[in-house]
This record gives sequence, structure tokens and C-alpha cells, in this order.
Amino acid sequence: MSAIFPTARLRPSPFYDCVIDEGMVSASVYNGMILPTGFGDPEAEYWRIINGVSQWDVGVERQVQLKGPDAGKLAQILSPRDLTKCKIGQGKYVALCNHQGMVINDPILLKLADDLYWFSIADSDMWLWAKAIAAERGLDVEVSEPDVSPMALQGPKAEDVVAHVMGDWVRDIKYFWFKETEIEGIPLAVQRSGWSKQGGFEIYLRDGTKGTQLWNIFKEAGQPWGIGPGAPATCERTESGLLSLGGDTDGNTNPFEVRLESYLDLDVPDDVIGIHALRKIKAEGPKRHQLGLVLEGETPAPLRFAWEDIELDGVKVGKMTNAAWSYRMKKNIGYALISREAQIGQEVVIKRQTGDTAATLVELPFL
Amino acid sequence: MSAIFPTARLRPSPFYDCVIDEGMVSASVYNGMILPTGFGDPEAEYWRIINGVSQWDVGVERQVQLKGPDAGKLAQILSPRDLTKCKIGQGKYVALCNHQGMVINDPILLKLADDLYWFSIADSDMWLWAKAIAAERGLDVEVSEPDVSPMALQGPKAEDVVAHVMGDWVRDIKYFWFKETEIEGIPLAVQRSGWSKQGGFEIYLRDGTKGTQLWNIFKEAGQPWGIGPGAPATCERTESGLLSLGGDTDGNTNPFEVRLESYLDLDVPDDVIGIHALRKIKAEGPKRHQLGLVLEGETPAPLRFAWEDIELDGVKVGKMTNAAWSYRMKKNIGYALISREAQIGQEVVIKRQTGDTAATLVELPFL
Repeated sequence: MSAIFPTARLRPSPFYDCVIDEGMVSASVYNGMILPTGFGDPEAEYWRIINGVSQWDVGVERQVQLKGPDAGKLAQILSPRDLTKCKIGQGKYVALCNHQGMVINDPILLKLADDLYWFSIADSDMWLWAKAIAAERGLDVEVSEPDVSPMALQGPKAEDVVAHVMGDWVRDIKYFWFKETEIEGIPLAVQRSGWSKQGGFEIYLRDGTKGTQLWNIFKEAGQPWGIGPGAPATCERTESGLLSLGGDTDGNTNPFEVRLESYLDLDVPDDVIGIHALRKIKAEGPKRHQLGLVLEGETPAPLRFAWEDIELDGVKVGKMTNAAWSYRMKKNIGYALISREAQIGQEVVIKRQTGDTAATLVELPFL
Repeated sequence: MSAIFPTARLRPSPFYDCVIDEGMVSASVYNGMILPTGFGDPEAEYWRIINGVSQWDVGVERQVQLKGPDAGKLAQILSPRDLTKCKIGQGKYVALCNHQGMVINDPILLKLADDLYWFSIADSDMWLWAKAIAAERGLDVEVSEPDVSPMALQGPKAEDVVAHVMGDWVRDIKYFWFKETEIEGIPLAVQRSGWSKQGGFEIYLRDGTKGTQLWNIFKEAGQPWGIGPGAPATCERTESGLLSLGGDTDGNTNPFEVRLESYLDLDVPDDVIGIHALRKIKAEGPKRHQLGLVLEGETPAPLRFAWEDIELDGVKVGKMTNAAWSYRMKKNIGYALISREAQIGQEVVIKRQTGDTAATLVELPFL
């Protein structure tokens, strides 16, 4: 592994000093910012998410803010999902697509007011996209990147910690719903959300100068529950069947292929981007699907960088997009983006850099 | 510095195995790919660019390909620079802007045919932008990412090496012009280009399976000239006054502010994106300009990540966007993005993380 070379092109998050103090040893780059990925003990960090409460700097989850009279109109034009019933304070997971119906981002949409929305985005420059569409369609809306940086608390004990800090009202927040609030004068939005399936909250910091203060409030409050630093974990997200935009998808992946069909509404108006293409893909039937892979072998063998070919009876049928050692299953597991002809239960061969590896196709999620 | 955590979200370039073999110790992420930044001896790598020939994996310089009957039309709509006289085989540096006239990328445009163009892009998702505009304007053009990955040879001895491999005809290539060719059956485009001011070429590999073969051809051929691995160097590019998109600019930086005015043609047709805004900015006069900074102090103190405030007579007037130790000047030097009221020759104070630092505003480039 190489060290990340610091330049002004890569931005730190407001929690950067904190994660350095916590002992960050590895990181990625996401939306042009440093995303902490590890603090030196991957297995302990994993079990903290599964059994306790883990504190994450996910400031890289940037917000694409739509503000103005046409904010709601633009949000709907960008989202092939019916937003007419979305309420203020509600969030919705949406599969943003291009005109060809290919997934370009999978954000959480937050409706803060009738004229104010945020897309809490995955890793692609959605400002460019949203600004292009707003301008080309002559909409009265300002697209910008506000001073908002999420911090996540994830794990079964996260709710206790957040309730201890914010009050027991947070226990009543429904999934992806949020509330605007503050603590010690720090403006926040608190949402039940997060990139794990172990439960938790995302605390949207709305003043980038208060990162250290906010981090330490939760760090201190969480001590009785054994809080510690962590990060989105490849092992947990793979076990849980979560999608990594740009990891499990490329520029030619449609939502049907990666288990996002339930987040689509094909009867949204015709001016929604990609809706014609999505209806056509649905009618013709998608060519690929996403399945789980359980690999042979008893030692960790994660996927590094490039997708690897999958063969069925000697014929190339798809790609392994992701692989991680599962601490709970004691197996290497991964995702296949693979021809619909390949089915659950079949044995395949993965053409790994380290050599051919047998694997079984299984249903997602694993756990 | 933290290590880069490998996942399929970050793509390697076709030269990745080679730079690992060469001893890469630090890297960045650029266009979602690993960009090597150092091989363990920054000063030796710098002098190799200044005095010799340096071999770079710049596969991260991705191509946004426009192909089809409206390719030329789309290229012009995206570019506030007159392309009517651009010839096949010619490249042009262009400042792509959004509708508000803010710089969103500064690629080299390559015209391969009347219906085939590449934008060799800096670090932002220009595919999203180009696809949005093509679709919204109903143009008959396919926007895609072709299998093209540049490798650069930079430094005063680069031409000798490239001529030795390709033939003496490369000596006649004019700046940013290119020729499609091949070597040992590997399809290439060879362009006089590169992100240094020491001269050199970019070799566009057009078959991603041949990265190691291509790297080794030039590595071997370059031995008599002392070729060695390198990377775009913060020190050299700062001395030379080159712009780093996303480093020296943010989402609200216009071309006039960062010395790109000479690449604009304000009389291009009205359907060119951003042209109305650019004419207005020109008429009203831009508020900021980009100047050089020579900092006090005799020890290297590079800028890490965030911009730092600049004060003139106790008043905040701008930001330092970049700073590096100049091996030739034996000074820390950097760029100021600063109010037009601040002028060359003035003394300013930079509010550095390490404390206040005096600096003098100077003309760019430094050398």
C-alpha cells in the first residue's frame, strides 16, 4: 500500500484532526476528500460495528443542495422514484440515472423544505450533473455544495449514545427520516441512516469549524458504551449486501442489475431523466444480475482494485466486483455482476490474479 | 501520511504493476484511479525532470470521447474557445466552464477525426457533464470512456528517448499536436505534451492490456539517457506556473482569475456553455487574480490539503492554494488566489497552520 500524498486538490473533512488523533492508518479518496478506512485493527473495528458503537468520519458524503422555487421539480427530474409523497424531514434512497438509464449515483435525498433539498451523495461529481440539468432546463434553482459534513455512529449501541447526547426523541426517528437540531450551539441534522446494516445515525454537521467539538461530544458521551473509531467496513457492507457506487457498478450498470428495482417508480413523469430507458430495460429484461459469491479457501483474499472475471463451465459470464473476508462466516465472500443465465447454487470459477478460485453463487445479503 | 486502502472503487492504470515494481511509495487518487506521486527520493525525482528524462504513469488522465456526426458540435458547445480552425491531429488546451462561467475542467482537446474528439481531462467527472449536455440538446453523439491511458516522458532528454523508439519524425511534432501510430503492434497516439514545462511527450496507450510492454519499451530505450520513474511534481509545476484543477480552483473560480484568459474566445457562438457569463465577467472585471508567493523561511513547508488565508495589512484578501519547496530557488513558493487590490511586490501574511508567515507577491511563473 502506498501513502496518500497531500495536496490542496484533496480536501480534509472537519473531523480530519480527530481521525489523525484517533490513529488513522489507511484512507481512501471519495468525492475529492480523504475518507478514513482504518485505525490499525480491522477485526476489532469490525466487531465494534457488529456488537458496539463505532464513530465514523464520513464527511466525504457531500451534499448537493437544491434551493429555490424549482428545487422540488429538479429533485424529481433527477430521481426515477416518486417523490410526490416525500415529506419535510423525510429521506429517500434514490438511484440517479443518466438518460441511458445507467446508475450515476445512489444518494439519500433529504427534503428540508419545499424549496430546499439535499442529495447526500456517493462518489461522483453530482454537482456537475445537477447544474447541467438545471441550467439546460431553465429551472429557477441554485445548485451548490453547502457547509455540511456527516459523522456516523453505527452499531447496536449507537442509538443509546445518540439518545444520551440528543435526548430520547431520537429513538422515534424512522429510517432515513431526520430532524434539524443543535447541540452546544452546533447546528446539525440528525438522521437514522448509515452505510451499515447494524443500525445507527448520521449527524450532519452544519458548521465546518466545529468538527472537533462535535466529534469529542460524541466520543466522550459514548465511553460507557465502549465507543471507538471506525469506518465503513468492506466486510460488514459485503455481508449485509450494501452497494458501493463505482465499486460494484461502472458507467454501464443499470439499477435492475444491482438490486435497486424496488427504489424505482416507472410511472413518474416523462421528463424524469432516464425513465424512458428504464422502462425499455424493464420491458426487455435486464441482461445481468447481482449475486453473492462464497469462495473456497480459508485465508483472507480480498479483491484489490480491478474486477476479476467469472467463468461458468469455461465460459466468461461476469465479473467479481468485490471480495472480503467475513469474520462471521469465516469465508471470503463477494459480489458477482453476472449474466442472468448464471443462477443461485451454481459453481463458478473466478480468474483471480492469484489463480483460479472456485466459488458458489448465493443469494444476497449474506447475513 | 495514511496508506491508500485498495477497493474496486479505485481503478489501477495499465502501468500499475510497473510503478509498483519501480518502487512507488506515495500516490493520490485522480479521476477515481491511483496516481503515483513518488518513488522515495523526491529531490532526485525532481532533478530528473529538470535535467534528464522522467517516466510517468498518468493513466489517470482519462479521455472523454465524443464520437458521431455531432461530435464537433458538442466539442464546441463545451469549449469557450474557437475550435473552427482546429485540425485533425491538433490538440488545444481548453477551459471548460459551467453556465455560470466557472471552470469545471481544463483538458487538452484532441481532434482525431471530424467525428471523433477526446478531452484528455483533469480531475472531475466530465463524462457526466458531456453526457448531460449531449442528451439535453438532442445531439447525435456518443460520449464514452475509451480504452486510452497516457504515459508521459518529461524532461529535456525526453525527445531523444521518444525519437529513439518512434523515429526522428517525433522531433517535428508541434506543441499539443499528435500522431496516431503503433510500436510492436501496440496502438498509440504520440503527443508533444505533459504536465511540466521541461518538455516531453505523452504516449496515449490504446490497449489497456499492453501497459507493461509499453512501459518497458521506453524504460529500456531510455537507459542511455538515465531514464527513471517519476510523477507530476508539485515543486516543478509550481515553479513553472502550471494550474492544478481542483487544487488551485474551487467550484467558484472563473478562467480570468487563474490566468486562462488567453485560452478563451469570447466571440464563439451563443450556444457555447458559459459564454454569456464569461462576457459579463470580462465586462465587469474579475474580482481576483492569481499571483505567486515567495514565503519567508529556509526549510520546506508544503501546503497540506486545505487552502490558507492571506492577509494584507490585517485584512483577509485571499487564499494560498498551493505551496512547495523550490529546489532551484531554495525557497517555499506558492500561489495566491487573491483580490485584485493586492499587487505584485506587496508583502502579505499567510495564516498558516504552523503560524503566521510573511510572503511577497510576485509574478507567475517563477522560472
